[in-house]
Amino acid sequence: MEIKNVTVAGAGVLGSQIAFQTAFKGFNVTVWVRSDASIKRAKPKFAGLAQTYVDALEAMKTDLAAYCRGLAASDASAEELDALKAKAHKALASIRFTTSYEEAARDADLVIEAIAEDPAQKTAFYTELAAHLPERAIVVTNSSTLLPSMFAEATGRPEKYLALHFANQIWKNNTAEVMGHAGTSQEAFDAVVDFAAAIGMVPLPLHKEQPGYILNSMLVPFLNSAQALYATGVAEPEVIDKTWMLATGAPMGPFRILDIVGLTTAYNIVAMNPQANDPESVPGKIAALLKEKIDAGKTGIAAGEGFYSYQ
Amino acid sequence: MEIKNVTVAGAGVLGSQIAFQTAFKGFNVTVWVRSDASIKRAKPKFAGLAQTYVDALEAMKTDLAAYCRGLAASDASAEELDALKAKAHKALASIRFTTSYEEAARDADLVIEAIAEDPAQKTAFYTELAAHLPERAIVVTNSSTLLPSMFAEATGRPEKYLALHFANQIWKNNTAEVMGHAGTSQEAFDAVVDFAAAIGMVPLPLHKEQPGYILNSMLVPFLNSAQALYATGVAEPEVIDKTWMLATGAPMGPFRILDIVGLTTAYNIVAMNPQANDPESVPGKIAALLKEKIDAGKTGIAAGEGFYSYQ
Repeated sequence: MEIKNVTVAGAGVLGSQIAFQTAFKGFNVTVWVRSDASIKRAKPKFAGLAQTYVDALEAMKTDLAAYCRGLAASDASAEELDALKAKAHKALASIRFTTSYEEAARDADLVIEAIAEDPAQKTAFYTELAAHLPERAIVVTNSSTLLPSMFAEATGRPEKYLALHFANQIWKNNTAEVMGHAGTSQEAFDAVVDFAAAIGMVPLPLHKEQPGYILNSMLVPFLNSAQALYATGVAEPEVIDKTWMLATGAPMGPFRILDIVGLTTAYNIVAMNPQANDPESVPGKIAALLKEKIDAGKTGIAAGEGFYSYQ
Repeated sequence: MEIKNVTVAGAGVLGSQIAFQTAFKGFNVTVWVRSDASIKRAKPKFAGLAQTYVDALEAMKTDLAAYCRGLAASDASAEELDALKAKAHKALASIRFTTSYEEAARDADLVIEAIAEDPAQKTAFYTELAAHLPERAIVVTNSSTLLPSMFAEATGRPEKYLALHFANQIWKNNTAEVMGHAGTSQEAFDAVVDFAAAIGMVPLPLHKEQPGYILNSMLVPFLNSAQALYATGVAEPEVIDKTWMLATGAPMGPFRILDIVGLTTAYNIVAMNPQANDPESVPGKIAALLKEKIDAGKTGIAAGEGFYSYQ
């Protein structure tokens, strides 16, 4: 099936990026948010994204390190990059905003749900939306932590519902994990894989539901093992990072990655482990060391300091 | 304390590399092996290493990618690299071989034990050696899987006994994990850290005993999580590798690393898990998929095929 009209629900960090990238790649994009106040808050975010794209495209003319995989081919000429800058401006002007379920749903070939990670809110949204969607429409969720099977029935179209999971800064980190539930049709799955590629993403298909998708299924135990080494007094973050980088050739070790992910997110993950309440357990020790840093304002790169200082 | 005379016990893959690298860096090296037949088998290995070093130094003159961190500074001139080639030849000529415990121990400032990963053999070796060692001598083990506390008493010098763990191809992969047991003195620990740096390694100090040291403490859960994704049918190795590489900027994903490590080693690690005997469990599924590949001769890069083909 052909996808032309895309509705993105939610204009948070990821929602706005997904909507802008989709418009940048030439699709008709409608952004649905809950209130006029949300529209007002969203608009400057989109203007900022347009500027980010224009700056990135300009930098790509002369700086190899500035290359953004989601924006252009790696050998794009200066003329091509200028043409893409014009496209970014056009994308900004083209995006429609609405607070109406009907308007959001009416012409949608694809709805990308990127609202809060709250099961009740998502269920309510899908139920309301389903009343207005055309038969053909596919619905995907960008949820990081919830599984599509939880909401498949609420969408009223379980066979056309699946997950399409993006990474932050999608114009650079252009991965799109595609994950159905047991009732997703192959046709809808394939259409979403094709759509992901069409908006400049690298589609990463999963054969079945997996909490954490592919990346977090590896990243969480990896980061956990590194934090355990530090929290139990085996070695220092700098030594642990150096070990990983020298042995695997990676550009970053686990503590540098934690600074990027943010220590608050790392804390929330370890806090889900019931053992974290026991200060003598390894999860308890990891939680304590993260809490100490968070309480001191050292929450990662965004704060200027985490395990490393960035000031 | 000053280390000049180094005895390396064992001339297997790692033992011969450690001995050659140590001689290359100007130390007096004695290699202890169990029999004259072992000496005969070892000598061509050392000649091969000398040739490997000479070839690597020559390649480093023109090929940035050929850089070996353990051999020279990254900005070494062609003249300096030629001088190092002469040193490699000299190192080969300088290494002494012995089957005598007394000769191995008599003048040793440092003994590096790199014999089989067999607790009984190690205990017997240390006990015999202890009778001949000078008071000052430090003893280290290169064991990957056994802890120094298991052998500290047998060495007769627990305060001067610790682990110094090398990676394969130490002239390129120049990490040296330094790990004491609870009774290791700070002085001996520091002397071994200094020695590791003196032979061109990056010393990675651990504050306490940790099975698997730093690297394997992270690598094993990381590789395990990746194998679980494949063994349970979530995604394909290529997709899993791509996800990791795109998200973290790493040059290799877990299945490429498994091909380098070797699937037999990966199998041995998962087989240690008692659950691996249950074909319905995740470790059981991982063991089955590794066994299938191993039975087909696909044991990794060295065999020309593993998860990827290298033919």
